[in-house]
Amino acid sequence: MAQLLSCSSSLNTSTCKKSYLKPLDHCSAAFSISVPFKTTRFPFRRLFLREENSKRSRVVRATAIATNQDAPTQSSSGSPQSFGVPSKPQRVMVIGGDGYCGWATALHLSNKGYEVAILDSFVRRLFDHQLGLDSLTPISSIHDRLHCWKSLTGKSIELYVGDICEFDFLTEAFKSFEPDAVVHFGEQRSAPYSMIDRSRAVYTQQNNVIGTLNVLFAIKEFREQCHLVKLGTMGEYGTPNIDIEEGYITITHNGRTDTLPYPKQASSFYHLSKVHDSHNIAFTCKAWGIRATDLNQGVVYGVMTDETAMHEELCNRFDYDGVFGTALNRFCVQAAVGHPLTVYGKGGQTRGYLDIRDTVQCVELAIANPAKPGEFRVFNQFVEQFSVNELAALVTKAGEKLGLNVQTVSVPNPRVEAEEHYYNAKHTKLIELGLKPHFLSDSLLDSLLNFAIQYKDRVDTKQIMPSVSWRKIGVKPKTVTT
Amino acid sequence: MAQLLSCSSSLNTSTCKKSYLKPLDHCSAAFSISVPFKTTRFPFRRLFLREENSKRSRVVRATAIATNQDAPTQSSSGSPQSFGVPSKPQRVMVIGGDGYCGWATALHLSNKGYEVAILDSFVRRLFDHQLGLDSLTPISSIHDRLHCWKSLTGKSIELYVGDICEFDFLTEAFKSFEPDAVVHFGEQRSAPYSMIDRSRAVYTQQNNVIGTLNVLFAIKEFREQCHLVKLGTMGEYGTPNIDIEEGYITITHNGRTDTLPYPKQASSFYHLSKVHDSHNIAFTCKAWGIRATDLNQGVVYGVMTDETAMHEELCNRFDYDGVFGTALNRFCVQAAVGHPLTVYGKGGQTRGYLDIRDTVQCVELAIANPAKPGEFRVFNQFVEQFSVNELAALVTKAGEKLGLNVQTVSVPNPRVEAEEHYYNAKHTKLIELGLKPHFLSDSLLDSLLNFAIQYKDRVDTKQIMPSVSWRKIGVKPKTVTT
Repeated sequence: MAQLLSCSSSLNTSTCKKSYLKPLDHCSAAFSISVPFKTTRFPFRRLFLREENSKRSRVVRATAIATNQDAPTQSSSGSPQSFGVPSKPQRVMVIGGDGYCGWATALHLSNKGYEVAILDSFVRRLFDHQLGLDSLTPISSIHDRLHCWKSLTGKSIELYVGDICEFDFLTEAFKSFEPDAVVHFGEQRSAPYSMIDRSRAVYTQQNNVIGTLNVLFAIKEFREQCHLVKLGTMGEYGTPNIDIEEGYITITHNGRTDTLPYPKQASSFYHLSKVHDSHNIAFTCKAWGIRATDLNQGVVYGVMTDETAMHEELCNRFDYDGVFGTALNRFCVQAAVGHPLTVYGKGGQTRGYLDIRDTVQCVELAIANPAKPGEFRVFNQFVEQFSVNELAALVTKAGEKLGLNVQTVSVPNPRVEAEEHYYNAKHTKLIELGLKPHFLSDSLLDSLLNFAIQYKDRVDTKQIMPSVSWRKIGVKPKTVTT
Repeated sequence: MAQLLSCSSSLNTSTCKKSYLKPLDHCSAAFSISVPFKTTRFPFRRLFLREENSKRSRVVRATAIATNQDAPTQSSSGSPQSFGVPSKPQRVMVIGGDGYCGWATALHLSNKGYEVAILDSFVRRLFDHQLGLDSLTPISSIHDRLHCWKSLTGKSIELYVGDICEFDFLTEAFKSFEPDAVVHFGEQRSAPYSMIDRSRAVYTQQNNVIGTLNVLFAIKEFREQCHLVKLGTMGEYGTPNIDIEEGYITITHNGRTDTLPYPKQASSFYHLSKVHDSHNIAFTCKAWGIRATDLNQGVVYGVMTDETAMHEELCNRFDYDGVFGTALNRFCVQAAVGHPLTVYGKGGQTRGYLDIRDTVQCVELAIANPAKPGEFRVFNQFVEQFSVNELAALVTKAGEKLGLNVQTVSVPNPRVEAEEHYYNAKHTKLIELGLKPHFLSDSLLDSLLNFAIQYKDRVDTKQIMPSVSWRKIGVKPKTVTT
């Protein structure tokens, strides 16, 4: 133990494989400690990467965290201790921690002083191989990412490689890591992917629903007080003609009143899988006393967070393709390469949006202010609403400032959705907890656009157009990509 | 073909293996035609039982139906023809047609002149073997059942043996039978079963959700105009403090109004699976133009229908055990054997109930009055509301008339549910379509009770008490039954 605690500074940031994008002021000498972390490369179906002696490794982490200035945020309305969860540092398991939101969140939580473990099966990377897609940004392997993070900050993130649909794997991870909170990003998260063919539709619902059921059972069995922070989506609500509330709505009907779950009208097999999850989680909160927060997230844009910006090897993925790309990211790439912005149909589709820097903030706020035992809490996680046409106009304006000639074209809508509709969704609860939103100002657009321009040589324009149709989905497996 | 159409009366009702319970006035000589039906016994994983030449068999059926007086009910509000579905006879696929409601429905539809195919994997019979349970009534194999039905009525019911979660099987069945309507009972339908352990919870959701997804894809791909009649449950709604509407509720909120799906608050993994189905089906109606009717059924009681009463070999199953038994059926068996009626908790739990004779009526009404393309129609399928205490009082009163000394005992509630609550659920749509309800009068109770008394020697009292706890469900597989 003494050996591990001696911080012999055998490694420093120069051990990261790639050169820096910019000087790393964040990387102080205080982080140069020994790195017992193993960088084994996928030798097994299920792989547990952690230091050999768990008691030792825990002591090491505790020491490191005690010296960190960014202690976990504490709730103003109540402390975690009151529910039997240890105070700081908290142990947070990030399922799907190699993905777009998951990776940024895992680093943010680690940076904030939480002890973090990532669970991931890397199936998201497999999808890219299968569909012939790639992130705009070059991304490193999880092993290089974690090694780099450790080198830069001195902070270890444990890695558990496996599929949460396999309960034995999840059991081992829970017993080994003993999380105080689980952040669950580990789902197939693309609506178009779920609409490619029958097998992808079935995969999406099976993977997402069963994975979440397994997490609920693992919490009940092994970590009863563990707080589940589950990523839902604003798409669960659809586009009702009344205001969207945060999870619940008070209804007066025939002279009686009740507060009930907000009605759901999801519009893809993916969005539906999240609706199913929400119902399952709500039930287990009631029946078993599970404490859960459902973060109904809007459309995320951006790529940089304070942590991923520290080093090129920590760079996050950035999807612009017709399957995994989100609207604003895709528009920025289109503007950068001189491709017209592709508005689906009339472009009146309005949704909530947020910067990925707000995603990581929101998750941390939810963890720092946990739901009570038995509480199923729902937050709408976005900061601004835009129609697709409004987004296109903003990108056009920002592109002009950079000297780009940005055109917009309407393409047939591959989805089945209202293209002109009322939309007013509440999103105050995370603000009340302390969220400081980033807004989609021109400067942010500049940054996003500049980022797209930086990597424009990597753009595969064949990937930009929508290739998946809501109406044409069939039972025959699609084996050839467009 | 001439050979098959000759109706050479080579078989009559005496070919049924067992003797009659009572004289069969229903069985006229008009039904004595040749029986080309094969009684092969489960030789394959997937088994298709139908006459060899499909064109021949279809002509035979059409001829038989033309002479039948009970032609399919026609809607007063619109005929099936208007949606491109052939008029009568209609071809109805009954998924789960060997089960409690499915078997009664298949016979009823066949009797009414529909051409019927049963799809079943017989997993319901497997559950009995695995859990050490048995129907109160002795039930014949599906092969003997269908052979008997053909002998009695001259009507063939095709049989497809397989699991609808296997899409290849479902594809073959759809292509072969070409249904105009699909009645989908093919789900794991017990709340306690879904709460036995993690693997049963996962099985229930996976089996039910994926099976229904497959049915939706099969309709889209192979029978676009086919009407899906899906069995949901009143349990999807839970027990809200406002009136329960039929599927949708009009909400005025902050000065705006919309009609939205009625909020769902299911209270077991089984009930949740039906909620998931409802959302999935609603989406496919909107996106693909699927026509669907969701029958949110109450608790079914009784065993006899006009058709199952025709012969002992047609007898339906009757579950009284703590896993598959429904409240009223269980109470009648308890009264018959002198076991106290087991009221869970306070007994104020109120639900909708219906006689199985109304189940078969309702399904036929839904088929005869199909939903429009793209319509997701929801009917609440029950005829009376009772609290558990009211049921116990009714059984006690009826038992006394038969000289039984009926006691009632409160047992700890194995479920997590409100035991005293408001409950007022609408159920007018099926009445408007022509449902003639059977009410739970004393005479019905007499009949039910007499039935239980008739078979009381088959009662296994160890099966009566609840053995599954909502709160104690764990991740370890339960391999030993109580």
